[in-house]
Amino acid sequence: MTEKKFSVCFEPGHKIINGQKGDSLLDLAIAAGTGLCASCGGEGVCGRCRIKLVEGELECEDHLQISAEEFAQGIRLACQSRLISNVTVEILAESRFDTALSGDTISCTLQSQPEPAENKAVLPLRKVFLKLTPPSGTDNASDLARLKRFLKPVCPAEPDIDYHLLSGLSETLRENNWEVSVSLLKTPGGEKIINIQPGDQTKATYAFAFDIGTTGVRGQLVEFTESKVLAQATEYNGQIPFGEDVISRINYAAREGGLIQLQRAVVNTLNNLGNAMLSEYGLTAEDISFATIAANTTITQLLYGLDPKHLRLAPYVPAANELPLIPARHINLSICPQAYIYTLPCVASYVGGDIVAGVISTNIPRREGLVLYIDIGTNGEIVVGNKDFMLTASCSAGPAFEGGGIKNGMLAKPGAVEDIELDTQNFEPKLSIIGGGSPKGICGAGLINTVSALLKCGLLGQNGKYNSNIKTNRLRKGADGCEYVLAFGREFGQGQNITLSEVDIDNLIRAKAAMYAGYQTLLESAGAGFDNLEKVIIAGTFGAKLNIKKAINIGLLPELPEERFIFVGNGSLAGARLCAFDANAQTQAAAAAKMMTNVELSESTSFMDNYMAAMFLPHTKSSDFPEVYAALSKFNGGNT
Amino acid sequence: MTEKKFSVCFEPGHKIINGQKGDSLLDLAIAAGTGLCASCGGEGVCGRCRIKLVEGELECEDHLQISAEEFAQGIRLACQSRLISNVTVEILAESRFDTALSGDTISCTLQSQPEPAENKAVLPLRKVFLKLTPPSGTDNASDLARLKRFLKPVCPAEPDIDYHLLSGLSETLRENNWEVSVSLLKTPGGEKIINIQPGDQTKATYAFAFDIGTTGVRGQLVEFTESKVLAQATEYNGQIPFGEDVISRINYAAREGGLIQLQRAVVNTLNNLGNAMLSEYGLTAEDISFATIAANTTITQLLYGLDPKHLRLAPYVPAANELPLIPARHINLSICPQAYIYTLPCVASYVGGDIVAGVISTNIPRREGLVLYIDIGTNGEIVVGNKDFMLTASCSAGPAFEGGGIKNGMLAKPGAVEDIELDTQNFEPKLSIIGGGSPKGICGAGLINTVSALLKCGLLGQNGKYNSNIKTNRLRKGADGCEYVLAFGREFGQGQNITLSEVDIDNLIRAKAAMYAGYQTLLESAGAGFDNLEKVIIAGTFGAKLNIKKAINIGLLPELPEERFIFVGNGSLAGARLCAFDANAQTQAAAAAKMMTNVELSESTSFMDNYMAAMFLPHTKSSDFPEVYAALSKFNGGNT
Repeated sequence: MTEKKFSVCFEPGHKIINGQKGDSLLDLAIAAGTGLCASCGGEGVCGRCRIKLVEGELECEDHLQISAEEFAQGIRLACQSRLISNVTVEILAESRFDTALSGDTISCTLQSQPEPAENKAVLPLRKVFLKLTPPSGTDNASDLARLKRFLKPVCPAEPDIDYHLLSGLSETLRENNWEVSVSLLKTPGGEKIINIQPGDQTKATYAFAFDIGTTGVRGQLVEFTESKVLAQATEYNGQIPFGEDVISRINYAAREGGLIQLQRAVVNTLNNLGNAMLSEYGLTAEDISFATIAANTTITQLLYGLDPKHLRLAPYVPAANELPLIPARHINLSICPQAYIYTLPCVASYVGGDIVAGVISTNIPRREGLVLYIDIGTNGEIVVGNKDFMLTASCSAGPAFEGGGIKNGMLAKPGAVEDIELDTQNFEPKLSIIGGGSPKGICGAGLINTVSALLKCGLLGQNGKYNSNIKTNRLRKGADGCEYVLAFGREFGQGQNITLSEVDIDNLIRAKAAMYAGYQTLLESAGAGFDNLEKVIIAGTFGAKLNIKKAINIGLLPELPEERFIFVGNGSLAGARLCAFDANAQTQAAAAAKMMTNVELSESTSFMDNYMAAMFLPHTKSSDFPEVYAALSKFNGGNT
Repeated sequence: MTEKKFSVCFEPGHKIINGQKGDSLLDLAIAAGTGLCASCGGEGVCGRCRIKLVEGELECEDHLQISAEEFAQGIRLACQSRLISNVTVEILAESRFDTALSGDTISCTLQSQPEPAENKAVLPLRKVFLKLTPPSGTDNASDLARLKRFLKPVCPAEPDIDYHLLSGLSETLRENNWEVSVSLLKTPGGEKIINIQPGDQTKATYAFAFDIGTTGVRGQLVEFTESKVLAQATEYNGQIPFGEDVISRINYAAREGGLIQLQRAVVNTLNNLGNAMLSEYGLTAEDISFATIAANTTITQLLYGLDPKHLRLAPYVPAANELPLIPARHINLSICPQAYIYTLPCVASYVGGDIVAGVISTNIPRREGLVLYIDIGTNGEIVVGNKDFMLTASCSAGPAFEGGGIKNGMLAKPGAVEDIELDTQNFEPKLSIIGGGSPKGICGAGLINTVSALLKCGLLGQNGKYNSNIKTNRLRKGADGCEYVLAFGREFGQGQNITLSEVDIDNLIRAKAAMYAGYQTLLESAGAGFDNLEKVIIAGTFGAKLNIKKAINIGLLPELPEERFIFVGNGSLAGARLCAFDANAQTQAAAAAKMMTNVELSESTSFMDNYMAAMFLPHTKSSDFPEVYAALSKFNGGNT
């Protein structure tokens, strides 16, 4: 690597990340998961990404939105600042997104004081507090007309009203001394009154953002006024018993009553997540005024009760890619019954709203340089592109990255092994467990890191088989062939062993081979190679931060300079959250979905070749992984 | 009467009506119930009210929309033609509204070929037939995107879609060879896809128009493409068991579960009427794509499930006067579940959508001369005004005009006595019965006509008591005092007598006194008297055509030259139908409702005086009814 590397320390939180000369501080802040805000996506117009230079130097333009006095104090816009030395910067309070729960916090969008820029974020839902003059003999307009009259100054275009609100209107007004908060939802046809609550409730407006994966479902409880993520929760998708992958679920949906069962199952999961988050904050379902959802096309169709049959029959046509806003009661989502659900648009049968969410949350449609975006999950999803074009493809990786199909696999939740260090002498493991305590299983990141570690110490061969010549009580014969014991039950005072068998490893190899072959093939379709990439953005929900080096070791990621990778965590959830905070993001999502061209990997002649070539650790083609091969050469006598 | 009178005969149908010099042929056609069409309300811009002069002469402008050749053939616009002789005119086929069911057919609005005028009627719902290109490998847009793409040429603004349609979309398209009819509803936010039907169904689009009265409910089944009324039905309001007047129903709604019971009851009545009309035409509920409803404020609130409590508590505030469009499923109306219901806006607690409907159907907001509009029913509703102002009031007349509270009373349905001739010698009656056959009861018109006849032959005194000095077996003592027997059961081979008691007559006197005092008081509020009126428009649902002379005889109507009266039948139903045929009429209704000023009769000091003065036949003030008094003088020796 010829480029000079510098380290950046972001305060508060003391997050340290390495960058290279000229890197944008905003990009680095995003990559470090600091939760720095940028409404405009780094175009320098919103003035929100304010940082203060504490130590070191930055190359900055004296931007219009920073006064001379502020500039002298070290105030800068992160998006207009470039790395030229080791620095420590403080993210100013007003530019900070609450990141207590980060890990997958990406650039977010805020609504606070009025802003001049047209890039200003627009909340999809707003609450307005009204003090009405009570009716009298000389002014006996209807309750609804009175409400609209007092709304007029802040809502000049007469809003529509949800029919279901009318029945409670008269009593709500009278019981609350004619003081109410009105929730106004942005719809394609204008604003709509969707809730009328007692008194002044403008201080807090809550929404849910959900990412529904084939295997795992993640939710966040967000609050609009202070632009905070208050809680988050994760759970296996309740549809799993009806099929582990989308194809099995599509088949199940064809059975009598199957579709409705699948719809109920996923809504049930959302409600469980919702209740868990609500109870954490002492809120009730009624308090939730909006929900956004990102999911793949099959899950999206199932959620809306649409028969997904044609998704798997040529020419692979979804019933709908752009879904209308629907009231929560239509699908029995437990939030305020009049609240609406926004679902990110899908692109094609196997390119869903989750990938569109990832694309907008990482700003691909505004990037100059070529970017590879990889969402690693049960359905691996890949985008190659920039502001000019976007090619996209999906490949079925299987559930290994979410702990599925792995004997001791689990979602990235407390108790999951997320990293491991192996003593190269005695092969004893040192486990990193989410939340500490005793291990309950291995999450996706733990799986990658464990296989990398086993490979690096020679315990595992490049073909995915254990080296039975090595003697350690951690290696033993199990039901699924040879297995390594990460934890004996007795070590943690509990009964269960945590093991990793050759069958588990084989599942992982097939999963990573599918991913690798996927983006290799898509890059070929774009007439590009790994070298043309300015950035590789990795999204996924397999736990904490992915260790790039270890992912390269097993061949999940291409061997490129580490600086070119950005790990953004759950891009799908980030996009869903973005759409909860900003109606403009919904517009961007619709535009991005229209811009994305789907490439059917199954129709590509080279995909299968690429897949077979990737069924090895890291890959059969040693020249693509020179450093990994060099490191492993000690175990195979230098022969590759 | 100084003005010269001429007779007009309208063909086909041979409807004859008298008019005076200068009368508009359109007004006369409306008054005669011919069903002549006028989209623009008689302003001469739509060119739809085409007639052909068969005999006699008319004063006409050589209007732009009539060619010289046509003019030579006798073609005229009715709205631009004035009466100057006895004439026979033919209503041309293209200008004819199907009037097989008339009696209450008023000016209606049509949609046919494109028209240049901005007054063109706009159907609130349109169906578009689409032949889609099936998806292929190179064009695998989603089903919804494909549908919208093919809709685009006729619907450039992307329409919203009802969520409930999505689930059947894929199959409907595939099962019908990608040929479907899309129903597009006009909403305040733009067009909305509310139905997708197999094949080409643009030939027929059906809607219901309902007038819901406190006592009687009337429905019509209409068809858009040919602008026809296909069927009509009438039924007592199913809410009657919960209270005969609106006050009792408001009280009943306050009981536990009362509101929902009342809502169900009225919807049940609508569904019964709907089913009756559907079965007559071999249609199903699914075929009905739209419904319009006109009702008084209490009934409207009950229909929408809104607690009407505050309607009867000062300051008398409805929950809502303007109701949103709602899908039929929200109130379980048996039409296509995605179809929407439009309800005419109300003005105040006791001035409802029924009166607004009447006002727009008789074009009051476009009239120059002062008009008195009277809707005679259980709730009598009155409007005084023209294009500059409208004062409105309501008075509780009781159900007598709809046959309620009368021992042998009934709605104006087959079997009802609607008129009577009395032999002045032997007092034997000759009955006119709706539909012929044996009499089942007396409708409102029959009641008025019978009392008038009894009065005219001296059998009944002006105080509403029978003259027991007259000997006839038709006059006898009954359970409710003295009664006249219109029909002995034996005369028609059935068991039941049809009688009219003094108690029945007293109910009628109180009802007509309330009406008369109502419009007398309202005219006083407007600083006007009966003499200032250009027209008195009478609406009501009490059967067939009201006999103006007989209504004057009993003092229900003021003694004015007969030519000044126009009887329009059910103005409320006509307005509801107008709103089914023309979205512009909905806009006009909203504007009219805003223009109407309510006068609370109960707060008027003179109302009670006027009421007491009217508790006599025809009235205590003989100078207001000189002709009637002169005719009756023979029975009271010339003393008034």
